Amino acid sequence: MTKVNRKVVLSSPLDGVPTPENFKLIEEPSPEPSEGTFTVRHIYLSLDPYQRIAMAGRHMSADGKLDTGATPRAETIGQVIASRHPDFTTGDYVRSFGGWQEFSVSDGAGAFKIDPTAAPLSATLGVLGMPGLTAYASVVKLANIQPGQTVLVSAASGPVGGTLGQIAIQLGGRAVGIAGGEEKCAYVTGELGFDACIDYKKEGYGQALKAALPDGADIYHDNVGGQILVDAFSVLKDYGTVILCGLISQMNDLNGAKGFYLGLPIIKRAVMKGLVVYDFEDKRDEFFELVAPWVAAGKVKYKEDRAAGIESVAAQFSKLMRGENFGKTLVVLGPEKL
Amino acid sequence: MTKVNRKVVLSSPLDGVPTPENFKLIEEPSPEPSEGTFTVRHIYLSLDPYQRIAMAGRHMSADGKLDTGATPRAETIGQVIASRHPDFTTGDYVRSFGGWQEFSVSDGAGAFKIDPTAAPLSATLGVLGMPGLTAYASVVKLANIQPGQTVLVSAASGPVGGTLGQIAIQLGGRAVGIAGGEEKCAYVTGELGFDACIDYKKEGYGQALKAALPDGADIYHDNVGGQILVDAFSVLKDYGTVILCGLISQMNDLNGAKGFYLGLPIIKRAVMKGLVVYDFEDKRDEFFELVAPWVAAGKVKYKEDRAAGIESVAAQFSKLMRGENFGKTLVVLGPEKL
Repeated sequence: MTKVNRKVVLSSPLDGVPTPENFKLIEEPSPEPSEGTFTVRHIYLSLDPYQRIAMAGRHMSADGKLDTGATPRAETIGQVIASRHPDFTTGDYVRSFGGWQEFSVSDGAGAFKIDPTAAPLSATLGVLGMPGLTAYASVVKLANIQPGQTVLVSAASGPVGGTLGQIAIQLGGRAVGIAGGEEKCAYVTGELGFDACIDYKKEGYGQALKAALPDGADIYHDNVGGQILVDAFSVLKDYGTVILCGLISQMNDLNGAKGFYLGLPIIKRAVMKGLVVYDFEDKRDEFFELVAPWVAAGKVKYKEDRAAGIESVAAQFSKLMRGENFGKTLVVLGPEKL
Repeated sequence: MTKVNRKVVLSSPLDGVPTPENFKLIEEPSPEPSEGTFTVRHIYLSLDPYQRIAMAGRHMSADGKLDTGATPRAETIGQVIASRHPDFTTGDYVRSFGGWQEFSVSDGAGAFKIDPTAAPLSATLGVLGMPGLTAYASVVKLANIQPGQTVLVSAASGPVGGTLGQIAIQLGGRAVGIAGGEEKCAYVTGELGFDACIDYKKEGYGQALKAALPDGADIYHDNVGGQILVDAFSVLKDYGTVILCGLISQMNDLNGAKGFYLGLPIIKRAVMKGLVVYDFEDKRDEFFELVAPWVAAGKVKYKEDRAAGIESVAAQFSKLMRGENFGKTLVVLGPEKL
């Protein structure tokens, strides 16, 4: 049985926001496992902003710039279809870094079995996966939110921001979001239950931010950098905490990345902490145990921005990097069950 | 008895590094105290980099931009020569914000009596004054240095940096300085006892920094911002602490201030804290009690860059803002005793 593996490779060097033309689809025989490895059929492919800096060789997961002809790294949920590995069996569901392709071979490093009955499979890439863990690490571990405190979060309709605000609310805090567009803001307050959401694309955004936070924010979680980070300082309480996480506004254009004026945290006596989610792998279980029941009970909600088929990956990534996604961005590569 | 008060006023708007031509000296009758106030004869005038941003209206001590015709605010050590205030008596030595002039009248707000026998009078502006308190607040209060830890500090021959490294050493830490020029570096290691000092003006500075810190720095105290802050991140340990204090490299040119790439603290998982020394006024006594005996015993040393006479103030400030000072910059305006 020779299957075909379709994979996306970089076809031209990236400059600015990636377009589908930067990538091409190639076919190769589906990989067979050698001794000590197993083959995974991908079901869900995660697309995340950090993949853009990884392609530029500036993300810690990246070992240099992505060469043309190479396949971007990405987290996947899949099912083992052949195994010569003692710990993984055909039929197991796994979370691993399978990349932008339909099949991958793994030696088990960075691969984790998942229980398909514990939560929806795709949630393991979003609200209960790395974005959710990022939110938990930020607001619980680094910012140590206390009941009554207010957290402000940008990209609030996205998987990190949306989960973060909902965790804050479940822990007795208040959540104010920043998002782009009326539809996203309506979702953030109506569906996710944030106390307020400010549309940064709307006239009078700065005033609206101040009006939503008359007493200021104790914590600001930054997903975007740039001007929104600067604006957040205008409503940060003195001695407030700022968690630096994504710099999505700077990911497309790394050379032209606008710098940040450090006078702002000095004036506010802010504590700024850099967050790298990989540091919190050992907190994944406690995170899951806290948040999965909230998800199951409908107390913590999430939204997915899905596309289908390997041929849609590049366009879906481009959409994400243009900020046009709405919810956790992923691509469905195959059925959950064969 | 009518005395003359000579004072410096701004004569033309500032643009970039201030020059003596931006200021002029005027004379007026020396102020007489009204009921509830007292007149101070200034002995030492403190010149500090923050005065430049205050003049631009961007320092928290400033109530807007300094108008032409107005006198810059500055800390002074002086002696009361006439008093109609119940708490201050002729002959008292006081620390207050007398400004760039020979005499000032105070209602007592922000004025503190000092014991002229406790330490050299001028040290109250430097090693045992606001720069020293800044150093203490940074390394002890915000960074909470532990024995065995290494602190890196820029502007290491200046009053904040020099005092900071010496406090760290007294508390069982290591200190590495960054300074401009061989003479300053020789002073930092030879006189102040730092473990190393790197000359940022010298070829191979980046390599020298790494060589001096093979295991990295636990704490970086930033006095300067700009490229030196970026360089410091190259030797900061993961999870290290960065105290943001001065941004002297950006003080002359506020509009063109180069921003800082926030990817650096994310990659290092750094904790960055903004320091405003005014928050630590209530720690002045504990600071003095800790450090004054070290100064008296010669364990903590300091250097002053002195000029004499009110007519030298503007040139001395210009020298400071060009980074050509060596030690705590001050101007002697009169004798300690009449």
